[in-house]
Amino acid sequence: MKNSDFEEVRRKIAAYTIKTPLLFSPHFSREMGKRIFLKCELFQPTSSFKVRPAFLGILNHLEEARLKGVLTSSSGNYAQGVAYAAKKLGVKATIVMTDDTSPLKIAGAKKWGAEVIFCGLTFESRFAMLEKIEKERGMYVLHGFDSCDTIQANTSIALEILEDLPEEFTLLVPASGGGMLSGIAQAIRHYRPHCQVIGVQPEKGGAIYHSLQAGERVSTGKVHTLADALVASLPGGNTFKIIQEKVDQVVLVSEEEIERAIFALHQEQHIVVEGGGSVAVAALLAKKIQPRYETVVCVLSGGNIDRDVLQGILARG
Amino acid sequence: MKNSDFEEVRRKIAAYTIKTPLLFSPHFSREMGKRIFLKCELFQPTSSFKVRPAFLGILNHLEEARLKGVLTSSSGNYAQGVAYAAKKLGVKATIVMTDDTSPLKIAGAKKWGAEVIFCGLTFESRFAMLEKIEKERGMYVLHGFDSCDTIQANTSIALEILEDLPEEFTLLVPASGGGMLSGIAQAIRHYRPHCQVIGVQPEKGGAIYHSLQAGERVSTGKVHTLADALVASLPGGNTFKIIQEKVDQVVLVSEEEIERAIFALHQEQHIVVEGGGSVAVAALLAKKIQPRYETVVCVLSGGNIDRDVLQGILARG
Repeated sequence: MKNSDFEEVRRKIAAYTIKTPLLFSPHFSREMGKRIFLKCELFQPTSSFKVRPAFLGILNHLEEARLKGVLTSSSGNYAQGVAYAAKKLGVKATIVMTDDTSPLKIAGAKKWGAEVIFCGLTFESRFAMLEKIEKERGMYVLHGFDSCDTIQANTSIALEILEDLPEEFTLLVPASGGGMLSGIAQAIRHYRPHCQVIGVQPEKGGAIYHSLQAGERVSTGKVHTLADALVASLPGGNTFKIIQEKVDQVVLVSEEEIERAIFALHQEQHIVVEGGGSVAVAALLAKKIQPRYETVVCVLSGGNIDRDVLQGILARG
Repeated sequence: MKNSDFEEVRRKIAAYTIKTPLLFSPHFSREMGKRIFLKCELFQPTSSFKVRPAFLGILNHLEEARLKGVLTSSSGNYAQGVAYAAKKLGVKATIVMTDDTSPLKIAGAKKWGAEVIFCGLTFESRFAMLEKIEKERGMYVLHGFDSCDTIQANTSIALEILEDLPEEFTLLVPASGGGMLSGIAQAIRHYRPHCQVIGVQPEKGGAIYHSLQAGERVSTGKVHTLADALVASLPGGNTFKIIQEKVDQVVLVSEEEIERAIFALHQEQHIVVEGGGSVAVAALLAKKIQPRYETVVCVLSGGNIDRDVLQGILARG
């Protein structure tokens, strides 16, 4: 991609999403002795960054999408993003989800009129069901992390950060299948190549981390984690190549560290974040990384946490 | 004040505080059929706008403050702001609070090394105790809402909003003694006089509302409200004059409406706001006002809500 490609993507997405605040955190800055910023993607429509790839994916194939409808599989945030974007763009949406998807995320997708189809419990069953429905109905398939549209859409997050920060920085990015991490890394390497780009995954799972160790894509199987948005058991083929080439490091965080980050963000920063959205802060607070720069940006990717899960965390304190 | 005065105040404060995000809310915009923005003062150090007047009040009298120490009375947010600013500026701080102050706010003031003195239960007892200590110790007294420094400091909130929004707008501002409302109104009338400026108070109390009705300052006595930052039982003499002249309207919200706004901000906007910080959104959601403009800004003034109070609200849903 060249400058004009990045800018064109950003322009397309900006018409339907918000430029999210890059919020300076007095509390975390004091605690870590660095300048800590939070890229607040959880303030997007549908409360996660996934509206960006959802809009670009449909906009880039709008005629086909309007004719056939769109079909995707999601752990919940992409589902809501696609449902919302489809509704705004006059497109019918069908979404495959596992039976154990967060009730909040199922309701969030249905709220925008998407049809939800359940597929059993595994990551693999989502794609098997998706293939079956694609064959039956001939809908246009959107991929939540591994398509070119998705990766390109997420470059827009990096462009906004680069616009707000003149200096070089360390950037911590939540990762599941790698769509956001690869998109952001691509734009950072293009515009400000010396920035440090680090992916963060839950210990339970961590498919990209283990694949990087193995030097090839490996599956980590079904997991249950508080970071229920980060359950891809296999990195994308496209995303993995970009991550191998352009990301400095991928680190893991424990369930306890995720819970502590959700609590700290809630109590000290006054932001309600979901497990998957908190892992960048979790890695920072648990000192899982050595930031190369004084300025550190953590992406808060989503805020869709079930109320009873959050209440449990607040009660445990 | 002329342009250069406003700018000078903003410059002084900006060295110690953040320019808070003016956050577009997709959710509330959809719900209200307007363009709704949230001025997120709860992301300041000490989690409320009160750091602005705290810093300006000390900075404008720094030598005296360093020599004598500063003394103030507060329902809790100004206490934390003063404690924090005093610590940063090398000044000793003593703060008078009522016995029933939120435990979070007491801890927040002590955390920065301020001495806290309790004074009984009423708004009046705060000022009686303050006078007593002033006589005994000869400290420099800061006023949380009625001093010239405080009112001027709060003009900086308006300057930030004006910088972010080119158009005319309706602005909803939480009000207790009127320091923020009068400061904001002063700057708005100077720079963009046709904007609509509305104050919001809890029904329990509502000293400015009732004083405007009476045409003179009247006391509303001791109240208990979820908006524990908005318990001034008498408007300031200076603030009241400015409000009479420059504010379009002051409206009241019920305890139930405040609770509903805290819940909606938490669940839909992913922001943890305290009662007093939520009243602007409460007035909007309860349709207590007729916005004159398509663009509406609600000031979220603070986020210091006790965890058990919030958990009760989340549980009731």
